[in-house]
Amino acid sequence: MPNDTLSPALPPHLPPSARSRVRRAAERAHYDEATVHAIVDAAWVCHVAFADGDNVLCIPTASWRVGHTLYVHGSNGSRMMKRLAEGAPACVTITHLDGLVMARSAFSHSMNYRSVVIHGCFSVVAEADKPAVLDALMDHIAPGRREHARAPDASELKATTVLGIPLFEAAAKIRDWGPRDKDEDLALPVWAGVLPLREQRLPAVAESGFDGPAPRYVDLWSHG
Amino acid sequence: MPNDTLSPALPPHLPPSARSRVRRAAERAHYDEATVHAIVDAAWVCHVAFADGDNVLCIPTASWRVGHTLYVHGSNGSRMMKRLAEGAPACVTITHLDGLVMARSAFSHSMNYRSVVIHGCFSVVAEADKPAVLDALMDHIAPGRREHARAPDASELKATTVLGIPLFEAAAKIRDWGPRDKDEDLALPVWAGVLPLREQRLPAVAESGFDGPAPRYVDLWSHG
Repeated sequence: MPNDTLSPALPPHLPPSARSRVRRAAERAHYDEATVHAIVDAAWVCHVAFADGDNVLCIPTASWRVGHTLYVHGSNGSRMMKRLAEGAPACVTITHLDGLVMARSAFSHSMNYRSVVIHGCFSVVAEADKPAVLDALMDHIAPGRREHARAPDASELKATTVLGIPLFEAAAKIRDWGPRDKDEDLALPVWAGVLPLREQRLPAVAESGFDGPAPRYVDLWSHG
Repeated sequence: MPNDTLSPALPPHLPPSARSRVRRAAERAHYDEATVHAIVDAAWVCHVAFADGDNVLCIPTASWRVGHTLYVHGSNGSRMMKRLAEGAPACVTITHLDGLVMARSAFSHSMNYRSVVIHGCFSVVAEADKPAVLDALMDHIAPGRREHARAPDASELKATTVLGIPLFEAAAKIRDWGPRDKDEDLALPVWAGVLPLREQRLPAVAESGFDGPAPRYVDLWSHG
């Protein structure tokens, strides 16, 4: 695994930098590594923001973590890959929405969520490290699958840019409680509570043409 | 409803602008209003990217649509609200992840998703229009609830910035099919297919203190 070679050791509790410090609803902020990593690891996609000339772009893309680094990948020809590879300052955000919070007053409505905002610049993963980092993507999606799927050949590897951003400047934000109404609203005859949401895994849909048993990660998908 | 006064009429099929035209995987692109609106309406949150000095920020926030405008809101003191109210160029992205696409080759793996990317600048919603636009947020979250919850008072309205961005420059991207392997990989003895995902609504969690029957939108929440 590339953890050691690709990710420098970091202190387990990072102080927030000026730009990563949470300003709004700061009681929801977390800067410890375990919290940041858990939110990152629960995600299949992130949103990457970066400047492109006078425009700002915000693009969803697959993401995965190895050690203290978050990775994304794409075609060499992609505008996003080019700008990020040039070192454009980036902000990467991962959000899990966990529920709608219904307060007695309209004003106190809220949402429950887990999010991470990462600031920094991406670095290009060297050719020699690409196979291991892409294996980690496959491990993230379906543990065991990289032993079955055809591995990338030299031309496929060459056509793919892989970029990593350190989780140095990362802030998590979590809200996971019920409504917080103003005292004077608590006795109002209004239903209050949380309408929870979660990501559900539905049964796998197989392509035809393969007659063997489904792999374990497929069987477990909607029963995990 | 504020549709007519707040949203200018738009042609139902918008040609993409230079910055909204989809470049990568253009066969997944859609620019028609019905497709863009359906993806926007299925979302509770968007990601807003904007520049703040030398940094780019990407912040998740609640969003809702009225007519041809997407709205967000927040405290007057929020950095995001201030920058966007000043007219900072923004990119707003909404993403629904619908599945992981498992191809025979690692290289051809993909994801199924529905996304919308909106370019433009936000405008501040006038004080007089705020109540109607915030009512539309409540209608989006829980139809009928604005007749029960305490409406915002003057000080709450004054403390809230509401911003709208036109859906003029919006591009949708949809991938909703199985793996597309290279011809030479189709006969490989590898399970291929889709591992579907969807947003699930779990049973409502009520606060204590209200003895009446749950409103219809609460009962319907996890049975809708």
